[in-house]
Amino acid sequence: MPDSIHAIPEVVILRLPLYVRVLTQLKDEGTEVISSRELGDRLSVTPAQIRKDLSYFGRFGKQGRGYNVSYLVGELRQVLGLDRQWNTAVIGIGRLGRAIINYPGFAPEGFKVVAAFDADPAQVGRQFEDVAIQSIGEMQQTIRERNIAIAIVAVPAPQAQRVISELVSCGVKAILNYAPIAPQVPEDVRVRNIDPVLALQTMTYHLKVRQDEAGS
Amino acid sequence: MPDSIHAIPEVVILRLPLYVRVLTQLKDEGTEVISSRELGDRLSVTPAQIRKDLSYFGRFGKQGRGYNVSYLVGELRQVLGLDRQWNTAVIGIGRLGRAIINYPGFAPEGFKVVAAFDADPAQVGRQFEDVAIQSIGEMQQTIRERNIAIAIVAVPAPQAQRVISELVSCGVKAILNYAPIAPQVPEDVRVRNIDPVLALQTMTYHLKVRQDEAGS
Repeated sequence: MPDSIHAIPEVVILRLPLYVRVLTQLKDEGTEVISSRELGDRLSVTPAQIRKDLSYFGRFGKQGRGYNVSYLVGELRQVLGLDRQWNTAVIGIGRLGRAIINYPGFAPEGFKVVAAFDADPAQVGRQFEDVAIQSIGEMQQTIRERNIAIAIVAVPAPQAQRVISELVSCGVKAILNYAPIAPQVPEDVRVRNIDPVLALQTMTYHLKVRQDEAGS
Repeated sequence: MPDSIHAIPEVVILRLPLYVRVLTQLKDEGTEVISSRELGDRLSVTPAQIRKDLSYFGRFGKQGRGYNVSYLVGELRQVLGLDRQWNTAVIGIGRLGRAIINYPGFAPEGFKVVAAFDADPAQVGRQFEDVAIQSIGEMQQTIRERNIAIAIVAVPAPQAQRVISELVSCGVKAILNYAPIAPQVPEDVRVRNIDPVLALQTMTYHLKVRQDEAGS
């Protein structure tokens, strides 16, 4: 690994998980070697972009020979820290929070829900799946004790900013936010928003234009 | 509305739902007028960007007076086609598909799940919530009859591209994809991917760097 590893642009970091996804798929299909052109086609990215992105992490490909898929996916997983388990906590154990705890996609990828918190005293002490629901007041201690690096926020919108600020004060540096708000956090904390309504609303404009044209 | 409305850059369209979200919040809080500076602060966008984005849709603000929140949110909702109901279908009625049908955030925003499809014959004919589960073979007819504009895909990854291609051939132009793949669609079809694992994987790099530094 080159020393310059800390200087990797954020846009590259954001693309790498998709590289890992596609390379894993190729590996599962039995592909052993892939050119930057073929990989670019799969990802809708130019071959030059692929070569530049990967150059931040060392020399993976041999000129004119393509990349060894299995080796490359292993290296990228290591770069991204996907070679270890990450403990997570879900905050807000309503319908959405339960669906998140139930979500079958997290565990196989190394994301384990080890704690659950809710503000409702009637919920606290109950067990959901393998996880005991704790009060918000227990957050700080549990996050430290269970080495929780990532918080998943599923509380209603009006409570979300307050909960996120509390998580920040507990030292959490990575938050997956399902509440429909745009949270404010310090610069060293990362938030990713999962917001299906917002995603739908970015598509309706085009549907509307089409509908209006058809109707006129 | 100016004639140039078809020339709105896609990046602006992508930002507008967030404007609507924040303006709605301001309206609910009782704010009547807001400057581009204050709105920019809320959205982490420059005031110049706000003014430029909104200029595509007409003259909303008076020089030095700020924007009328209630009027602006109404106009933007109309621009985005959020002033009507959009019928949607969910494909794949497993654990994830059921959570999506159950998701309380869609209906209040005008997105109504009116149909559900699954490949499993044991599921077909069953009722889930208000929706009867139909076979994939019935998709084309139901999409036409029920005026379904948006498809929500919740099938396992290996089936997702085939299902998405079928939806495209049924004339669907907007797809919300929950399967962990990067789907290929024609240019006139829009896909938004909801992918919490990918979102988590964009944050672990920074956590890993921090962990490695603390450990060394």
